[in-house]
Amino acid sequence: MKVIETDFQAWMGGVQARMEAALGRFLPAAHLAPARLHEAMRYAVLEGGKRVRPLLAFGAGEVAHAAPERLETVAAAVELIHAYSLVHDDLPCMDDDVLRRGKPTVHVEYDEATALLVGDALQSLALQLLAEHRLADSAGAQLEMVRTLALAAGSRGMAGGQQIDLESTGQSLGLPELELMHIHKTGALIRAAVTLGAACGQVSESEKLKLDHYAKAVGLAFQVVDDVLDSDASTATLGKTAGKDARQGKPTYVSILGPGRAGELAGELRAEAHAALESLGPRARRLAQLADFIVLRKF
Amino acid sequence: MKVIETDFQAWMGGVQARMEAALGRFLPAAHLAPARLHEAMRYAVLEGGKRVRPLLAFGAGEVAHAAPERLETVAAAVELIHAYSLVHDDLPCMDDDVLRRGKPTVHVEYDEATALLVGDALQSLALQLLAEHRLADSAGAQLEMVRTLALAAGSRGMAGGQQIDLESTGQSLGLPELELMHIHKTGALIRAAVTLGAACGQVSESEKLKLDHYAKAVGLAFQVVDDVLDSDASTATLGKTAGKDARQGKPTYVSILGPGRAGELAGELRAEAHAALESLGPRARRLAQLADFIVLRKF
Repeated sequence: MKVIETDFQAWMGGVQARMEAALGRFLPAAHLAPARLHEAMRYAVLEGGKRVRPLLAFGAGEVAHAAPERLETVAAAVELIHAYSLVHDDLPCMDDDVLRRGKPTVHVEYDEATALLVGDALQSLALQLLAEHRLADSAGAQLEMVRTLALAAGSRGMAGGQQIDLESTGQSLGLPELELMHIHKTGALIRAAVTLGAACGQVSESEKLKLDHYAKAVGLAFQVVDDVLDSDASTATLGKTAGKDARQGKPTYVSILGPGRAGELAGELRAEAHAALESLGPRARRLAQLADFIVLRKF
Repeated sequence: MKVIETDFQAWMGGVQARMEAALGRFLPAAHLAPARLHEAMRYAVLEGGKRVRPLLAFGAGEVAHAAPERLETVAAAVELIHAYSLVHDDLPCMDDDVLRRGKPTVHVEYDEATALLVGDALQSLALQLLAEHRLADSAGAQLEMVRTLALAAGSRGMAGGQQIDLESTGQSLGLPELELMHIHKTGALIRAAVTLGAACGQVSESEKLKLDHYAKAVGLAFQVVDDVLDSDASTATLGKTAGKDARQGKPTYVSILGPGRAGELAGELRAEAHAALESLGPRARRLAQLADFIVLRKF
C-alpha cells in the first residue's frame, strides 16, 4: 500500500485517538445508573473499528476549514449511529452473529434485551449530541444537521437499507437492486458523515455537491471491498464472522459480478471519488487518501 | 366519571382526530420503498391508543398559547417515540407480548426483524420531525426541543427505565426503587410531552417549573393507575395482555402497596397535579381535566 503515505497514517492515528477520547467522554460513565446499560453502551462503541465515518467527517472538515472540536462531535454522533446499527444487526432476529470487532457481540456478552436497549439509547445519544453542542455558525444550520443525521438513519436511509437487505436474503438480485440496498444500508450514513463534517465549516453549494459525489462513490466502494474481503478473508483477520453473506444466501458484489470484476469496480469507484475531489485542491488531500485507504485495505 | 365534562370529551376527540391525521401525514406512505417497513411503521402507530402524550402536549400548549400546527408536530414526535418503545418492548427478548391496542403486536403481524427496524426508524423519524418543522420562535429554542426529546428517550430517560425494569423482574423492590423505574420508563416521556407542548408557545420560567411539577405527578399517577387496572381488568377491556406483570414477577404499585393504598396514592397524585396548576388559571383547564381523565379512566 505505498499510496498510503506515512503522514496519512499519522493523521489517521491522531483522529482515531481523538475519537476514542471523545466517545469516551460523550458516553455516560459506566458507573452511572442504570450501570449495566451504560457499561454495555461503552462496550458496544469503545475500542472498536477503524472509525471510517469519523475519518471521513474529519477529511471533509479539512475541505471546509472546520474546527476539530465541532468535527469530533459530529463524527461521534455518526459513529454512535453506526455502532447502534451493528448491535441491532447482530441480534438473533437479524444476522445472529456472535463476533464483532474481535469481541463477543453485545447480546452474547450481555443479553438480548440489553443489546436492544443499547442500540435504542445510542441512537438517542447521537441526536442529543448534535442538539447540545455548538456545531455551526447558526442554530438553523445546526437543526439542518440534526435533520441530515435523522434522515440518514431512518427508514429512507440506513434502517430502510437493512429492511431491503432482510428481504433480499435468498433472492437473486441484479446489480441495480444490490446497489439500491447499499446506497441505503451503508451509503446514507457515509454521505451523512461527509455532509456533517463539511457543515462544521464553510463550503460553497458547488463544493457540497462535489463532496456528496465523492461520498456516494466512496460509500459504494466501501461495500464492494467489504464483499471482496468477506469472500476470501478469514474470521481472525476480519474480526467478524467471514463468509457469512454467502452462507446466508445474501447477494454480494462478488456473487453477482465475480471477484475479478468486483475488484475492478472498486478501482473504478476509487477513480470516481478522486475525480470528484479534483477541483478542491490540497484541502481535499485527506479525503483522497481515505478513498485509497478504503479501497486498498486488507481488513 | 362526572368530572369529565362533555366539552372535555369533545376537545379530546378533536385532538385525537387531529393527531391521527397528522401522524398519517408524517409517516412515510405505505407504498414507498421499502414498503413492508413503511407499512409496518404505520401499523405500529396509527389507529391506536388514547394518545395521552399528545393530549398532554396540547394541554400544555393551551397554557402557552401555542399554535396547533406546532403542537401537532411535537405531539407526533413524542407519540412516535412512545410507539417505538411499545414495539421494542413487545419483542420476544423483552416482554414477549402478542397483543397491543387490541391487535397482534408488530413482530407477530410482520416478523421480529421488521419490528426491530420499525422501532429504530420511528425513533429517527421523531427527531427528524423536530428538526424540519418550524416549532419555536428561534432555531436555538428548537435545538433545545430536540435535546429534550433525545434525553427523555435515551439511557437516562425511557430506555434507561426499561433497563431498570428488566433488572427488577423477580426482585423485591421497595417503593423508592419502583418510583425510580417509572420516573424513567414512562415519566420522562410524559414530562417531555408537557415541556415540548409549552415550548411551542410562551411560558415564564416559573410556569415551566409548575408544568414540570404537574407532569411528574401525572406521570406517576398514570403508572399507578395502569398497575391497578392491570391487576383487575380483563385482556379484552385493556386491549393488551392483562395481569402480565404479576405473572412475570414484576413489582407493581399493587404488589407493593396493595390495591387499596395504590388507589389512594393515585388520588393523592391527582391532587398534587391539580395543586401545581392552581396559579395558572383557566388556561390550565385542559391539563387539570387530563389529570382527572388519567386517574379516573377505566381502561
